[in-house]
Amino acid sequence: MVAPLKVGIAGLGTVGAEVVRLIETQARVLAGRSGRGIRVVAVTARSKAKKRSLDLRDVEWARDPMALATHPGIDCFVELIGGAGDPALSAVEAALNAGKSVVTANKALLAKHGLKLAKAAEKHGGALNFEAAVGAAIPVIKTLREGLAGTGINRVYGILNGTCNYILTRMEQEGLSFGECLKDAQRLGYAEADPSFDVDGHDTAQKLAILASLAFGTKVAQSAVYVEGISSIAPEDLRAAADLGYRVKLLGVAVRTAMGIEQRVHPTMVPKSSSIAQVMGVTNAVTIDGEGIPPITLVGPGAGGAATASAVVADIADVARGIRANPFGRPILHLRDTKKAPMERHEGGYYIRLLARDFPGTAAAIATRLAEQKISIESIVQRHPNGGAAPANGKAVPVPVILITYATHEDAVRRALAAVQRDKVISGRPQVIRIEKN
Amino acid sequence: MVAPLKVGIAGLGTVGAEVVRLIETQARVLAGRSGRGIRVVAVTARSKAKKRSLDLRDVEWARDPMALATHPGIDCFVELIGGAGDPALSAVEAALNAGKSVVTANKALLAKHGLKLAKAAEKHGGALNFEAAVGAAIPVIKTLREGLAGTGINRVYGILNGTCNYILTRMEQEGLSFGECLKDAQRLGYAEADPSFDVDGHDTAQKLAILASLAFGTKVAQSAVYVEGISSIAPEDLRAAADLGYRVKLLGVAVRTAMGIEQRVHPTMVPKSSSIAQVMGVTNAVTIDGEGIPPITLVGPGAGGAATASAVVADIADVARGIRANPFGRPILHLRDTKKAPMERHEGGYYIRLLARDFPGTAAAIATRLAEQKISIESIVQRHPNGGAAPANGKAVPVPVILITYATHEDAVRRALAAVQRDKVISGRPQVIRIEKN
Repeated sequence: MVAPLKVGIAGLGTVGAEVVRLIETQARVLAGRSGRGIRVVAVTARSKAKKRSLDLRDVEWARDPMALATHPGIDCFVELIGGAGDPALSAVEAALNAGKSVVTANKALLAKHGLKLAKAAEKHGGALNFEAAVGAAIPVIKTLREGLAGTGINRVYGILNGTCNYILTRMEQEGLSFGECLKDAQRLGYAEADPSFDVDGHDTAQKLAILASLAFGTKVAQSAVYVEGISSIAPEDLRAAADLGYRVKLLGVAVRTAMGIEQRVHPTMVPKSSSIAQVMGVTNAVTIDGEGIPPITLVGPGAGGAATASAVVADIADVARGIRANPFGRPILHLRDTKKAPMERHEGGYYIRLLARDFPGTAAAIATRLAEQKISIESIVQRHPNGGAAPANGKAVPVPVILITYATHEDAVRRALAAVQRDKVISGRPQVIRIEKN
Repeated sequence: MVAPLKVGIAGLGTVGAEVVRLIETQARVLAGRSGRGIRVVAVTARSKAKKRSLDLRDVEWARDPMALATHPGIDCFVELIGGAGDPALSAVEAALNAGKSVVTANKALLAKHGLKLAKAAEKHGGALNFEAAVGAAIPVIKTLREGLAGTGINRVYGILNGTCNYILTRMEQEGLSFGECLKDAQRLGYAEADPSFDVDGHDTAQKLAILASLAFGTKVAQSAVYVEGISSIAPEDLRAAADLGYRVKLLGVAVRTAMGIEQRVHPTMVPKSSSIAQVMGVTNAVTIDGEGIPPITLVGPGAGGAATASAVVADIADVARGIRANPFGRPILHLRDTKKAPMERHEGGYYIRLLARDFPGTAAAIATRLAEQKISIESIVQRHPNGGAAPANGKAVPVPVILITYATHEDAVRRALAAVQRDKVISGRPQVIRIEKN
């Protein structure tokens, strides 16, 4: 019998406690699957005194994460501290440099320092597993790293943030504003007191950077991701999308283009019939377009203690089984620099919503400006708020105009709309949402 | 540098040819991911003379599958012959007994002889990988075997046969009959000339048996699966389902119950809002309910040369990386006998469609028979085919009656309907479709 894998866990919040519990209750199954036992031998957390419903009598308490990471008695360091900086960063580095394997759920750490950490893992022979960092228990890392090992990937995209999808779902289903839904999300614990990390798209960007590296063999680089959040989305956008056969989702999209790998996070119109459009509430989903095969979509809980712990324990079981995959699917030497495809060259269809000051003249002005940029219009709809009747005071009321363009370039759209604004025929700023075809 | 993995491929149809092509075109990526090269050194197929668009000049042609399986020059035998019997069976056995690893896409072989083959793999140390056998490129085997290694599973269910889902989708969307859609499916190459293996549910049953073993740690046993096909489904069932907020899908369901592991294949009403209900056409999907976590659904192509080859190559890459998972997730000694939960004890809601000879009296008779079996009715709907007007000839026309029951037992439903038939108040046989909640 092989000696059991000795695990040290840093961080005993909801996820950490559930990992300890799973390793204990599933001991026999895990041993059967891994060919050896798995034992938690040491832990650490901010407060030792805190009351926990865990029996830690047989488990050593390490002074701090660094002491645990370099503890000679552990084979596998599980980092559940969070954050891109210390103490998580130095502890993970120290564990890898000591030849230990590391399992982490820390997307920020990987998006920022993934390459450096993967180098340390490769050099010293430890595993670096992070299934829980993206989509919790949805096996997207394993699928990209192993399940599609022999298939070229053209695009990977998904709903990677449950908070945003919850807000957009409620806005769509109940016609509520962004602000109202955000408040509800905060009340229900789906959004933080400071929601900007989620709603401005940065959480999605970190996860996308990790997926893009795995899919395309590039060096993980969060800075290569273009980011737009969902706070500008209005109920009228969701209504218009529905009328046009679309839904609006905050997507992270990484796609191979002639200009390089495009990585972008923004509100996106997706066809209502697509798998990704069906994903509602806090659920996450990732779609992978492999060369020559129809898309594969993985749907499930993207967060939550039990779902995250499930992925962490599966990663630990892989370490126990002796699996040492390249953290980003390829040896470091094969990983290419991320060439950031400029967003200005993004090609696709666009949804544009404007408030026209005076419709007849404005429509002509807008059409001219779009034509100057060689943008073809697929549809144009105006909605007179009062059924077209002139208001009592005789003053023209701004009229919403909704345009859908055929595929064009982002810079053409930007130039055309800048010209429309200079023409002073619209009120306020135009709303622009990119369309993603499946 | 480790020596390359030497692969022998038996069967050079669409899948086999695509596997050869992928191994060649993706050589660098595969070597990077696996840490060693992968080389096809020998092949065999029914006809050597057949024209193929493959360059096999540097590849040895083996006399027959058995010669290839025991060829001293290969490390990994790839079986793409198909069928539960010989030559596939003896070749795979011989390869495993010779200590080689085996990759196969052969669901029939695994459903029938999986346990024996897994024993041979375990005894001689080779891998036995079969991701392509269920859901082609959908990584469901890997997810059950590795991705949820530490999570107890309560239920796994899915759309595992593209032919049936294509037929049900067209029936629903176009109001066509089963026979018309089957003919179209045959014309388009989605169904065989003899479609019974698909439409009677046996293909789904084989795949379900494999998934159940992985999910529950039981010995794979196709004979433990209760099977019903889709040929009795009528357009009026699909219309009624839609009115009630459901869709009808041919599901394979394996679920842990107090009576043992229930394994069943039958047309099933699923809530329209569920992930599985969104799956249309030839697409497959599997949902996994893990303990304490929301469901995970994997959606994608369940068949096709490229999708199947993608999974086969990923399995070969795992062999190259030295991964030796237990074929069914646990050591043979841990696999329990499959206790077949009797279908009579199945518990759930039921959809029942009857043709009442004369509605007022019949409704009372049916209600009495159901009440005798302690079955509670959630809803009852009658649809007068001519809006309720008495036909010109004064003769009573049979009236469709649709009942939805609350959760009850299968044997109660069977007894109640037998009594209704004895009462001679209905025409023809009752249609019964089980309801699956998510």
